[in-house]
Amino acid sequence: MNVEFPAPPTFPPAEHTLTNIEGVKAAGVAAGIKASGAPDVALLVSDIPMAAAGLFTTNHFAAAPVKLCRSHLLRSHGNVRAVVINSGNANACTGAQGERDALSMCEQVAKALGCPVHEVLVCSTGVIGVKLPMEKVSKGIEAALSSLSSEPEAGRRFLKAIMTTDAFAKEASAKVGDALFAGVAKGAGMIQPNMATMLSFVATNVELRAEMIKRALPGIAQASFNAVHVDTHTSTNDTFLLLSRKTVKGDPSWSKHAEGVARRLAWLIARDGEGATKVTTVEVTGAATDDAARAIAQRVVGSALVRTALYGNDPNWGRFTSAVGNCPEVRDARSLSCVLQGIEVFKAGEPAPFDKAAASKAMAVEDVRLELKLKDGPGKASLMTSDLGYRYVQVNAEYTT
Amino acid sequence: MNVEFPAPPTFPPAEHTLTNIEGVKAAGVAAGIKASGAPDVALLVSDIPMAAAGLFTTNHFAAAPVKLCRSHLLRSHGNVRAVVINSGNANACTGAQGERDALSMCEQVAKALGCPVHEVLVCSTGVIGVKLPMEKVSKGIEAALSSLSSEPEAGRRFLKAIMTTDAFAKEASAKVGDALFAGVAKGAGMIQPNMATMLSFVATNVELRAEMIKRALPGIAQASFNAVHVDTHTSTNDTFLLLSRKTVKGDPSWSKHAEGVARRLAWLIARDGEGATKVTTVEVTGAATDDAARAIAQRVVGSALVRTALYGNDPNWGRFTSAVGNCPEVRDARSLSCVLQGIEVFKAGEPAPFDKAAASKAMAVEDVRLELKLKDGPGKASLMTSDLGYRYVQVNAEYTT
Repeated sequence: MNVEFPAPPTFPPAEHTLTNIEGVKAAGVAAGIKASGAPDVALLVSDIPMAAAGLFTTNHFAAAPVKLCRSHLLRSHGNVRAVVINSGNANACTGAQGERDALSMCEQVAKALGCPVHEVLVCSTGVIGVKLPMEKVSKGIEAALSSLSSEPEAGRRFLKAIMTTDAFAKEASAKVGDALFAGVAKGAGMIQPNMATMLSFVATNVELRAEMIKRALPGIAQASFNAVHVDTHTSTNDTFLLLSRKTVKGDPSWSKHAEGVARRLAWLIARDGEGATKVTTVEVTGAATDDAARAIAQRVVGSALVRTALYGNDPNWGRFTSAVGNCPEVRDARSLSCVLQGIEVFKAGEPAPFDKAAASKAMAVEDVRLELKLKDGPGKASLMTSDLGYRYVQVNAEYTT
Repeated sequence: MNVEFPAPPTFPPAEHTLTNIEGVKAAGVAAGIKASGAPDVALLVSDIPMAAAGLFTTNHFAAAPVKLCRSHLLRSHGNVRAVVINSGNANACTGAQGERDALSMCEQVAKALGCPVHEVLVCSTGVIGVKLPMEKVSKGIEAALSSLSSEPEAGRRFLKAIMTTDAFAKEASAKVGDALFAGVAKGAGMIQPNMATMLSFVATNVELRAEMIKRALPGIAQASFNAVHVDTHTSTNDTFLLLSRKTVKGDPSWSKHAEGVARRLAWLIARDGEGATKVTTVEVTGAATDDAARAIAQRVVGSALVRTALYGNDPNWGRFTSAVGNCPEVRDARSLSCVLQGIEVFKAGEPAPFDKAAASKAMAVEDVRLELKLKDGPGKASLMTSDLGYRYVQVNAEYTT
């Protein structure tokens, strides 16, 4: 068999990046943590404390930097001067030494900025179970500190330095009047292997209090990063931070703008599902409740059978309906209809006549929409997933050996 | 990329097959339901009513023959003279016509045998959403009726005629004193796409009452067919029947023998996971309860990341531990140890030093054992899964188009 892999997609850069937020500087440098010599230490610094809140992995094996971030956010009441990140090594499953190393990264930055150590957050992403090469990390932080800049290019260097297996950079922004939201993310989709953490940093100039961010963050994540199928794995290092530089007056709909940016970043993560050729959004409507709808959508996006059919542009409604048919949350399966890219392929519990070639052609695009309609109630949910193709197997079977 | 697929494995035939049970005859013929011309109508007949019970799919879209089987077993109080099966068409999602067709298959057999229609069971497996070609099916049943035989070869023809995407025939037997257990199965592993139903028929000469079988069946299935990871999909047609020809006196440990046969059949199904190269048995011990252990094992065997690592012979403990770390059923993850093919790769929450090349080599076998040890309590569970390789993608992405 000969399999050709398409080149990774390219996307135009976002209009704004992190350094477009007034008072925010960034850096990204190569410190030699990655064998490839690619950038691997990133630093984000604000001139005054930003209000911040974060969401973190729920994995039992949460990495040292994740635990430290949680603790620092508590101690600083959500006041954050800087975030320091290394890629190439996750500092996870590294015991007490790992905790000392994470703290030492914060201390180095805090000392240079002259701020309390708990105003510095730290993230790591990369291989797990290997101790950080602290000499390299420390030199990298030193270089990052001295190359901090508010140029847009500095924001892009920051982004490059947080990437690991990403096939392309992920950024998004929104500007509404004076309000600016800029975000970056790293993570390769559904996969989250032991080197593919999801990290995302969204900053805004809108004046927000840390408690406001903390309250809004779960809803924003539910509609974005948590709406991406993560292949049953949540990494040891997953981190999502939202930071406010408090420059312009608050806008009551600020969380909608932040959600838009986060949702675009989540789409890009799904699109980069290590070998993915498209993103499929599964929309369930008419379920008994929103929770039921989400559970049904989860079952569909989590199915390797569904995801291989999506890869093959196969309008195989049998896979969609059998996934739905396996959900205890479904009350009346006989009401199920499936609409794939606007084409009804299954209607009220029975196959609908449709042009298979046309449906297959309609699936051969970047963005696929699969609607699953029930009549159990008002519940709805929308989740994104990547397809599962040969490249997924290649990346994941040949990863560490 | 050039990918070579290994030839499907071969296994020696089981010592005994269904027709070795006294009084049992079988047939398997080609009726033209399958475009390939392969055998597609199978018939099993006993001279006297067998005591029988069955387990069936829980999918909301249970096929017409499944519903009819349930009803016939109730009406006949578990007295079964015959089972008629067609492959190539699942008679699922076929509405009222499908129900009439399933009944008509039973009627034809009952008339020929001179028994009540509810003493005949029916199974179908194949594409869903397509009406049965009843003229062909009826001629096939006629041919099967006239070629019934008690020769071992007839049992094997029966087996061939129930197969669809199977890469090899699946049979198993056990003889303990005079007690004989013989079973066959069809099904290609973890996958259960819209053509890959799991069907299994195990027959014995041991005298059992239908109620005894009914009571024992869930336990037997839990340790065998339900211990195989089914990729979140349960097909519309899954059926497991256990039949007693009531020839020799009962043996109190009969259910253990039946379980052994069923477990071997389940292993063969996992081994045939459409492109699988091995079966991995995941054994969880020390979980809080047996249910917790099963939930943890499910999380591990259901992970596409774990399954690609198994395919790549990659002793990637990060995938195993991160899967375990994501289980809410785990109480103390820091006690986790992982033993892969006898090699400890993770000990008490931290990586253990091991020879990676040797571990990888130890994984390159038919049967892989992964032990996950916790210290939460006495709970244990054992599940089987196939690995996930290029061939899985090929089979499932290019299936119906």
